Amino acid sequence: VSVTSFVSTPLVDADALAAAEERLLGRVLRTPLVPSLRLSDELGAQVFLKPENLQHTGSFKVRGAFNALLARAAAGALPPGVTTFSAGNHAAATAFAGRALGVPVVVCMPPGAVATKVDAVRRYGGEIVFTDDLVGTWTSVAEERGYTALHPFDDPDVIAGHGTVGLEILADTPVPDLVIVPVGGGGLISGVAGALRVSDPGWSGRIVGVEPSQANAVSYGLRAGAPEPPPVKQSSIADGLAPPFAGVNTLAHVRAFVDEVVEVTEDAIRDAWWEMLDTTKMFVEPSGAVGLAAIRSGLISVPAGGVVVFVLSGGNASRTGLAALSS
Amino acid sequence: VSVTSFVSTPLVDADALAAAEERLLGRVLRTPLVPSLRLSDELGAQVFLKPENLQHTGSFKVRGAFNALLARAAAGALPPGVTTFSAGNHAAATAFAGRALGVPVVVCMPPGAVATKVDAVRRYGGEIVFTDDLVGTWTSVAEERGYTALHPFDDPDVIAGHGTVGLEILADTPVPDLVIVPVGGGGLISGVAGALRVSDPGWSGRIVGVEPSQANAVSYGLRAGAPEPPPVKQSSIADGLAPPFAGVNTLAHVRAFVDEVVEVTEDAIRDAWWEMLDTTKMFVEPSGAVGLAAIRSGLISVPAGGVVVFVLSGGNASRTGLAALSS
Repeated sequence: VSVTSFVSTPLVDADALAAAEERLLGRVLRTPLVPSLRLSDELGAQVFLKPENLQHTGSFKVRGAFNALLARAAAGALPPGVTTFSAGNHAAATAFAGRALGVPVVVCMPPGAVATKVDAVRRYGGEIVFTDDLVGTWTSVAEERGYTALHPFDDPDVIAGHGTVGLEILADTPVPDLVIVPVGGGGLISGVAGALRVSDPGWSGRIVGVEPSQANAVSYGLRAGAPEPPPVKQSSIADGLAPPFAGVNTLAHVRAFVDEVVEVTEDAIRDAWWEMLDTTKMFVEPSGAVGLAAIRSGLISVPAGGVVVFVLSGGNASRTGLAALSS
Repeated sequence: VSVTSFVSTPLVDADALAAAEERLLGRVLRTPLVPSLRLSDELGAQVFLKPENLQHTGSFKVRGAFNALLARAAAGALPPGVTTFSAGNHAAATAFAGRALGVPVVVCMPPGAVATKVDAVRRYGGEIVFTDDLVGTWTSVAEERGYTALHPFDDPDVIAGHGTVGLEILADTPVPDLVIVPVGGGGLISGVAGALRVSDPGWSGRIVGVEPSQANAVSYGLRAGAPEPPPVKQSSIADGLAPPFAGVNTLAHVRAFVDEVVEVTEDAIRDAWWEMLDTTKMFVEPSGAVGLAAIRSGLISVPAGGVVVFVLSGGNASRTGLAALSS
């Protein structure tokens, strides 16, 4: 399957965001916005956390997955089943949404997926197919079973669902000067940046995405001008940020709405992971710490005294993974 | 120093709670009440978390310490300095409050205090005296320097300050059926239980305290009828719950307001610690997990479908302490 299998759609707009917000009411957790006095002191800013680690299923992914299924249901097109591919968080989220709506879910996952994430998919009744060929297996499953092939990050309803994170940030903070978002395939930052830019076209704040330099599908895609798979297999301690490629829609959203995407090293992520746990007391997975890694690496300048929001993408770290921190 | 050095005071009342709430406005974090869908599913109840790990300084202790200093300031009796004793969380909290009010703070801490907690005291400008004789050193420092000796949990203003946790729970939840509170010296549960019982004398819910069986000062004191030090030195992976003795006031509050105090093993705490991190995505220290340990040990029965609140006391776990989880 080549990148031409991606379907280009319009950028997220106010109607799509409002519809997502309404659909998700009572389905996902309206996460609080939590100030961090310690990060504020240490970074010389007013720092807030948007803790999607506390979200149902332990990551923001449930917003997009649920919105995608509910949008199809609203259009009278709830499928007999759904298949998707994921390192784990979108897999669990889709299983969770599918269970709530009575739709069977099959997820294609890499054989090395984090155990916590595998367990989560099973907890919510999802069926797992382990495969190195995520996209090939995904499209085969869809064809063989007559299921809808839900793209994990490039589907417009997934992007709009993630956009509710941005709407909630706007509702809860003073006007942010800087919003920092972890980047994998780019679905989260597409939705968040879209919500921020669309809700207030005059907003002058910055939105910065952060991805591991060993899993830089979005940066690579931006340079290539298309969601080409990077030549080296993507892999990072931030396992949630290592899809095989970006999307045509997420690249379009990043180009339209995001100021910059920066890349951080594995060592920087590991150090920032402990620092996030210790300073914020939020149990995040490594992916949730890349924003702080970027600041500590000098890649993002913090506006002195400004309002800074860290989107914490998820908290599905494994018990064995914690061992990396205890030494 | 014998237990006769404790000063018996009246039980916390509505006026003391209201005064504490007003004093602490803008000084401490109004922590959110966060539902846990996973714990709700697993325990068959509506489970909410009161995450004082997210509180300034990483524990609830700042509520009591700040209220104690502000109450003295309101009475025109802000001391030239304050000294207290603590395994760490109350130490950091008092240093934090002292810094805000310009009052020097000296804390007596055990030599084996968790590094994270030692760092926290220093971060907030507190002076540390390491000593095995916490109470003796505390009273000596007070005498030599002319400082106020602030009791870490038995001071009535400390108890009232902690009571604001209970007021916030009442404001944010449906009427709780069961509130579970970690117990060290008993200051937190005294305030929380006082707030719940005083605010609604007709409330029929249960309040259960949980302490490590290896650090059971309150259970021991209840049996002895006084805050006698248990014969064996108190020590637990839940380092925040191991004071040398309970207090006359905390014992009186527990007798008046609390249904039961149960004791959990070290193994149960260790298992529950990981389970809390994994299911709630809150970074708690082991002390914050004793409530779940008690349920998993069959010591607390959960009312089916009822509203259950876990008070998460703090999140100041050490990096090296995580090694206990990684095996």
